[in-house]
Amino acid sequence: GTLGGLGLALALGLWRRQAALAAAWEDEEEKELRQRFMAPPVSGLRELRRRRRELRSRMELLIMETQAEMCRALADLDPGASFAVDSWERKEGGGGISCVLQDGEVFEKAGVNVSVVSGLLSEEAARQMRSRGKSLKAKDGKLPFCAMGVSSVIHPKNPHVPTMHFNYRYFEIEEADGNKQWWFGGGTDLTPTYLNEEDAVHFHKTLKEACDKHDLKLYPKYKKWCDDYFYIKHRGERRGIGGIFFDDVDSPSKEEVFQFVKSCAKAVVPCYIPIVKKHCHDSFTPEEKLWQQLRRGRYVEFNLVYDRGTKFGLLTPGSRIESILMSLPLTARWEYMHNPPESSKEAEILEVLRNPKDWVH
Amino acid sequence: GTLGGLGLALALGLWRRQAALAAAWEDEEEKELRQRFMAPPVSGLRELRRRRRELRSRMELLIMETQAEMCRALADLDPGASFAVDSWERKEGGGGISCVLQDGEVFEKAGVNVSVVSGLLSEEAARQMRSRGKSLKAKDGKLPFCAMGVSSVIHPKNPHVPTMHFNYRYFEIEEADGNKQWWFGGGTDLTPTYLNEEDAVHFHKTLKEACDKHDLKLYPKYKKWCDDYFYIKHRGERRGIGGIFFDDVDSPSKEEVFQFVKSCAKAVVPCYIPIVKKHCHDSFTPEEKLWQQLRRGRYVEFNLVYDRGTKFGLLTPGSRIESILMSLPLTARWEYMHNPPESSKEAEILEVLRNPKDWVH
Repeated sequence: GTLGGLGLALALGLWRRQAALAAAWEDEEEKELRQRFMAPPVSGLRELRRRRRELRSRMELLIMETQAEMCRALADLDPGASFAVDSWERKEGGGGISCVLQDGEVFEKAGVNVSVVSGLLSEEAARQMRSRGKSLKAKDGKLPFCAMGVSSVIHPKNPHVPTMHFNYRYFEIEEADGNKQWWFGGGTDLTPTYLNEEDAVHFHKTLKEACDKHDLKLYPKYKKWCDDYFYIKHRGERRGIGGIFFDDVDSPSKEEVFQFVKSCAKAVVPCYIPIVKKHCHDSFTPEEKLWQQLRRGRYVEFNLVYDRGTKFGLLTPGSRIESILMSLPLTARWEYMHNPPESSKEAEILEVLRNPKDWVH
Repeated sequence: GTLGGLGLALALGLWRRQAALAAAWEDEEEKELRQRFMAPPVSGLRELRRRRRELRSRMELLIMETQAEMCRALADLDPGASFAVDSWERKEGGGGISCVLQDGEVFEKAGVNVSVVSGLLSEEAARQMRSRGKSLKAKDGKLPFCAMGVSSVIHPKNPHVPTMHFNYRYFEIEEADGNKQWWFGGGTDLTPTYLNEEDAVHFHKTLKEACDKHDLKLYPKYKKWCDDYFYIKHRGERRGIGGIFFDDVDSPSKEEVFQFVKSCAKAVVPCYIPIVKKHCHDSFTPEEKLWQQLRRGRYVEFNLVYDRGTKFGLLTPGSRIESILMSLPLTARWEYMHNPPESSKEAEILEVLRNPKDWVH
């Protein structure tokens, strides 16, 4: 029994030492997580470290950092409110982290959502995912895929502070022959209730600078794509004054597109937060609040009728509805035959929504 | 010159007599129009008289009468408010009459819309119009068609008064060989914020009685169709507690289906108005108003994401957007992760929306 007892004591000792090491390591991880992210990443910090050279790990860290930067910047402006943080798992593989601030002083509803999902796609679903509808060669009709992204919609209370939306995403699909197709998509766009030219120029200029670092052709191309995409056809209006939008981008190289997406993600806070700071204490009339509510109605119309991401999400089994519909405003309004008078501030923004302008050259 | 003068005098005399006769006739018409309808019918009263034996004339009179009956019943309950009546024309043929009461004492938004449109349909559009997607033989790819209907959505202010929707419609399409295909569709359904079993039974019983006069199989069949149709798939909930719904009905005979549709249209006022009268002065709390607003959000989700009529309307060139989106509430709300507590009144209605009940046997 003595040897056995010794063995047991040694084993317990070793176990205690390992546990202590693990606890120290976890403390370290915990600290890092708290400083850098809103919650532990879906893939786990250790797994992300292990495969740190792979692009999908770098992208997951980028979307986690973008989420945290945005949430902190917003929380700083609305000190009384705080983000509810939900980590959720997807039965079919992966999960996400949803951060939502609701009914604050400055923000009516602000959501920043990360999702990292993987599994098998049908050929039809894979085709629908790519905006250009490229065909993919599947084995047994199923394609292993991985999709991740950060998306956010910020609806402020004050009608002089615009709504903002951004989304950056990455897809990988493995074909039957082992060949991996990949592409990026994303964009950042602004939806003001009233036009402020200075803000519009600041917003577009910040995005243009992020694009110009990579290729001078990108901003004009993605600015137009944004105006075309956020079009409420039945109204003949755009949702807002645009920004940039791109989808299905797989050239010049994975590294170069990632660096471009990173620049865009890093531009989110500087293009929007100064506008919030500038106007969040502006005074406003009940009529201005009413016009904001009517424009929120149009936002709902675009998101539910046209937005590809929302439609795809609502139709995907196992998707998290609350995170998809987080983009809807807290409140909206529909009035029959509301037509703002000519030369009013309301007519001014409508004119720009009907005929998009170039804000920077 | 004398003969000529005589001729002119005679001609003027004749013209004056004809004008006087026409004026008397118009007075008579005017009186009839004011008593029976909200505005002159799209096809004109004289044209409807001339072809009074044709089913499409009888249907146009029925939808005009239904509109007027409903508007008068609603206006009686909300004496301070009044209906805005808009007659509109469709460039491609036909037109409509939209009656909307907005921001009244009892009703937040009440719309009753008639439309009578005709023209040429593409084969693809014709196929989409029929829910069963029957093929139609076109000449030169185009099919002459005629579509008419009355549709209405009533959103009351008080959360104890349910929202109500009804729609009755008739289609005719002429094939290349001159053969006319025709069918009817329609339904009446109730969307309460809180469950009141007595109201639910009254509503369904009134509809069942209208159906039972024609065929005992109709109510059970169309009650189920209603539960299946008004399904918000991504929520796993129905929009409301149902009623009846049918589409693409072309048997046993045109006359018999018309008589059935007429019974349904005549049942609209008796199935709903007593419920409004009973509850429009009920007291309510701010929490009950908030729950109503969240349910209004679900109403918007159904109408913009799933409703065939809305989707078809938004995609049809020349359709009148304001009349289509008249169905949306004045105000709606979306809260992230709102879950009513167990055993609450809010959970009670959710249970019924998730698992529809039989209200009459």
